[in-house]
Amino acid sequence: MPKIEPIVQPINEMPIYELLHEEGVQKIHQASLQVLEEAGMAFYDQEARRLMKSKGAKVEGDIVYFDADLVKEYVSQAPSEFTQISRNPKRSLKIGGSAITFAPVYGPPFVFDLERGRRSGTLQDFQNFVKLAYMSPYIHHSGGTIVEPTDLPVESRHLDMLMAHILYSDKPFMGSVTSTENARDSVELVRLLFGSDAIQENPALLSLVNVNSPRQFDETMIGALRVYAENRQAVVITPFIMSGTMAPVTVAGALTQQNAEALAGIVYAQMVNPGTPVVYGSYLTTVDMKSGAPVFGSPESQIALFASAQMARFYNLPFRSGGMYTTSKLTDVQAAYEAMMTMIPTVLARVNFVLHAAGWLDSGMVAGYEKFVLDCDILGMMHKFYQGLDLSPEGLAMDAIREVKPGGHFLETEHTMRNFKSAFYRSDLMDYHSYDQWVGLGRKDSLQLAHEKYKQMLNSYEAPALDEAKKEKLEQFVARRKAVLDN
Amino acid sequence: MPKIEPIVQPINEMPIYELLHEEGVQKIHQASLQVLEEAGMAFYDQEARRLMKSKGAKVEGDIVYFDADLVKEYVSQAPSEFTQISRNPKRSLKIGGSAITFAPVYGPPFVFDLERGRRSGTLQDFQNFVKLAYMSPYIHHSGGTIVEPTDLPVESRHLDMLMAHILYSDKPFMGSVTSTENARDSVELVRLLFGSDAIQENPALLSLVNVNSPRQFDETMIGALRVYAENRQAVVITPFIMSGTMAPVTVAGALTQQNAEALAGIVYAQMVNPGTPVVYGSYLTTVDMKSGAPVFGSPESQIALFASAQMARFYNLPFRSGGMYTTSKLTDVQAAYEAMMTMIPTVLARVNFVLHAAGWLDSGMVAGYEKFVLDCDILGMMHKFYQGLDLSPEGLAMDAIREVKPGGHFLETEHTMRNFKSAFYRSDLMDYHSYDQWVGLGRKDSLQLAHEKYKQMLNSYEAPALDEAKKEKLEQFVARRKAVLDN
Repeated sequence: MPKIEPIVQPINEMPIYELLHEEGVQKIHQASLQVLEEAGMAFYDQEARRLMKSKGAKVEGDIVYFDADLVKEYVSQAPSEFTQISRNPKRSLKIGGSAITFAPVYGPPFVFDLERGRRSGTLQDFQNFVKLAYMSPYIHHSGGTIVEPTDLPVESRHLDMLMAHILYSDKPFMGSVTSTENARDSVELVRLLFGSDAIQENPALLSLVNVNSPRQFDETMIGALRVYAENRQAVVITPFIMSGTMAPVTVAGALTQQNAEALAGIVYAQMVNPGTPVVYGSYLTTVDMKSGAPVFGSPESQIALFASAQMARFYNLPFRSGGMYTTSKLTDVQAAYEAMMTMIPTVLARVNFVLHAAGWLDSGMVAGYEKFVLDCDILGMMHKFYQGLDLSPEGLAMDAIREVKPGGHFLETEHTMRNFKSAFYRSDLMDYHSYDQWVGLGRKDSLQLAHEKYKQMLNSYEAPALDEAKKEKLEQFVARRKAVLDN
Repeated sequence: MPKIEPIVQPINEMPIYELLHEEGVQKIHQASLQVLEEAGMAFYDQEARRLMKSKGAKVEGDIVYFDADLVKEYVSQAPSEFTQISRNPKRSLKIGGSAITFAPVYGPPFVFDLERGRRSGTLQDFQNFVKLAYMSPYIHHSGGTIVEPTDLPVESRHLDMLMAHILYSDKPFMGSVTSTENARDSVELVRLLFGSDAIQENPALLSLVNVNSPRQFDETMIGALRVYAENRQAVVITPFIMSGTMAPVTVAGALTQQNAEALAGIVYAQMVNPGTPVVYGSYLTTVDMKSGAPVFGSPESQIALFASAQMARFYNLPFRSGGMYTTSKLTDVQAAYEAMMTMIPTVLARVNFVLHAAGWLDSGMVAGYEKFVLDCDILGMMHKFYQGLDLSPEGLAMDAIREVKPGGHFLETEHTMRNFKSAFYRSDLMDYHSYDQWVGLGRKDSLQLAHEKYKQMLNSYEAPALDEAKKEKLEQFVARRKAVLDN
């Protein structure tokens, strides 16, 4: 049986890169309060507007206005961190504080691998990615719509996706947000899996609620948000921003709008159910001003990432951003430049929940098999990075330095013998051979190694055990719902 | 005539990522003082040992021991920053403080391009890279041995390399360190180019003196170092460390040894000529513990980079490290992952002099043409990054946010019109097309675009003007020296 290494969720106790001084944080905070008070947010849902009005917001037509005190009152009710439970308790995750969570790419309709090229995603692909995420020690969370199973009916595919997360992995996962009903189905499935009390105590779902920027919450997202808040399930509230088209072309302006939008969603969640676990989300890219197309891995979006993380910390909330973004269609030099351009800031800003941490290609349109395992390898390096610098006497190694004569070799010292196994992260996808060795081995690049690796992984996959009675209950529920939805 | 954009050397006024707390810096400082006092450094040069003894160091055989006071006394004589002059005064560079300098790869015997593959470097290649570096607005320094011109005699090729830097570029460059004589030739050439007084006032050469780790300075390096110090030319003193073989396998141990070695070289330079401009250098990689091969872009070496930068700042010295390192033989996904793994920390640690900032492949064995222009593109993004976040009213863009209705579009706002041109860095090598557009355009990846770009650049190159009388003098000197060396 293949060994699934225990998840060790990294704790980032290293210093955080703080781009803004306190005045900078205050400026964005104050400007966004002004937006909330004077320009307001559109909520295209009567029930939501009614609730917000009853709690003290001003409502005119679809627009809801929040004053500073109201924002403060409700934002402060969100917990600063929470635990998302998992059916294997060892894989439950802390979301927030110094804890880091890596989750797979979310949303692509297409998949790519070296052999078959680019094609529409299927349930088989979805299951494959769940398996790969389950098997990687560096992915902590099973994610949500890793890829759209386009071979299934739209009406009920959320059920198949949720069942894949439940059956093929024992890591925490995300709920559906494509309708109010689908959110209810998601809650029902985790209720059957964990029991009502357990999911009331700690969320079993962490779901992705996007703001339809600029400044609007659509009916679908509000409906899903309400279902999750009512059931005390966690939500990530993420303004979906391309600076230059859906927000101002200046980073500070985009940050101001993003902050106002995120706060509005958080306030609403707390009005529905005070104490609902929420994550402050940022998905802030720039556009190519020549074509209007989104650009991932731009320098401006890293500036935004650092500043957004500070805003989330200012409100004492867990933070979601970052990932292995790229605009490239291929798993190539561009893909990696752009992915790392985002990933190192993600690490240094101490992002708590990193969606799209593996597999993202082509502006999020494609889930790449090779990219997935390559990204996981880099995430392994990040785990090592988080361990920081050991300054103990063993770390400082004075005995070894004294022992080795000028021009000598450290390989044979006692100190090296004691430490070499844990000293360095070792990648199995990056090629470290000399040129001649590499030629001798057939000039395999990382892409080829990644292709071989993901196949090996899928071949050796074994599902984690699941109680048969529970499984049956879940399957009965799904069958019942499909009978309704697919007719 | 092709427009060579003016160099704007970036000033990094953004916060620095400080990995270590003050006690951490003190620990490494104290441990390395102990190394210098108790274990000492081998200096394989009698003249050097004699000088150091006369200044108060203890000498036993080849080993020189320095006590803490002596180290402090001499290290404090090095300037905290300096200006390296250039024959075009607009291209002179500040080395140190908040100023950043990007320089090309240094040392590879091979070159690579898509058409001709991997092959030995020639003078033609050397000149090509000087031209490319001259034409990039994001490379500030012409570098040194960008590639070994292996088609020229070893004895005199330093003269051809120096002449290429002088004739094909007007950016500052590096001197030869391959022998005492070659260092003298380098000084003589800049004396002819700038005059004796000018180079006495500000260095015209910044040269790379490596420590032969562990703990030894060989005759060649000491000789070159002495020539440069006597002539008040700047030197980068860089312990050449692979943690695990040439230094302890723990990062703190490698840092301790590195710090001791760098300080020993700096002390010696100041003993030769107090006030000699020096740069504290770090080139600290890890090894693959399976094969002993060097690994570039490892997480551990980024930890080391951050800490090394803090050590240099602790001594109030300019700092050299980082670059676009990779172990990969190809300009591929591995190359870019590894390059960015190092480059973002390089930027956030505020490295002052970044050698190997463009063109590095295959553990430094190869200078890649496509990699060079791709790296330059990323350096352009870094220039944008250094501009930080504009929090002025124009940056915060409240007028635009107020103007655009929920669900509206920012493209047409006055604010966007005013700002869109300078808002975002625009790459011409990363592909931002949609998938269908990209297919229509022939599926060109960044590598192909980079190949086309470097060729276009070389085709449109024009040399910067140089005074004919000066040129003649330089050529006469070179001819005279070659007559001696090549016989």
